[in-house]
Amino acid sequence: MHDDEQAIRDVIDNWIRATAKGDIADLMTMMSEDVIFLTPGQTPMRRDDFAAGFLGAIEHVRIEASSDIQELHVAGDCAYCWNHLDVVVQPLAGGSPQRRTGHTLTIFRKENGNWVISRDANLLA
Amino acid sequence: MHDDEQAIRDVIDNWIRATAKGDIADLMTMMSEDVIFLTPGQTPMRRDDFAAGFLGAIEHVRIEASSDIQELHVAGDCAYCWNHLDVVVQPLAGGSPQRRTGHTLTIFRKENGNWVISRDANLLA
Repeated sequence: MHDDEQAIRDVIDNWIRATAKGDIADLMTMMSEDVIFLTPGQTPMRRDDFAAGFLGAIEHVRIEASSDIQELHVAGDCAYCWNHLDVVVQPLAGGSPQRRTGHTLTIFRKENGNWVISRDANLLA
Repeated sequence: MHDDEQAIRDVIDNWIRATAKGDIADLMTMMSEDVIFLTPGQTPMRRDDFAAGFLGAIEHVRIEASSDIQELHVAGDCAYCWNHLDVVVQPLAGGSPQRRTGHTLTIFRKENGNWVISRDANLLA
């Protein structure tokens, strides 16, 4: 169990690093084929929607996040994580960064020995 | 597994019924002692916060919801449900109802044989 928790924490750290680097290929390895991203007032995003949105965003901004995991619970090959994120969106052209903070509730799934994000509810405001 | 899924669907139906009736005592039986309700841009709500908010609301409105479960996955004594809710908030004094729709991602836990809500991310807009 401890190994699984550490592996999921590593995914979260790697996710934040890949996001800051704009490394969509790396991000894609950390989500399931059927991943669903839920955000307030939007239709659910799947893999391709996420990739398109991310690639569009990183043409203009750098996204730096820090996470403060509130809870991580593993149940077999499924886990959930309640997290608090602090995200700074820095325009590449300069200017004032935007800051967004709030909570996420994420379902992870163990696939072929690797933990990946399968469902994500993002409540950042 | 099938019995667990049906039991969780029953909790969701009962939750909607108790909400419409304003039955806070019944709602309290359907959540864990350490329940957390997450909503966009708000601090997390616990049992007492939820009860206070609900009792304040039902002095003025009746809350009628319908649910369209998108996915329900059981992993041992833990489960998650991705749901789509359509909520109509009807002022008791008359007037135009407010409508809120959107997704929820909810963690259920089996406690003493009963499924209860333990974590809930509410993305309704």
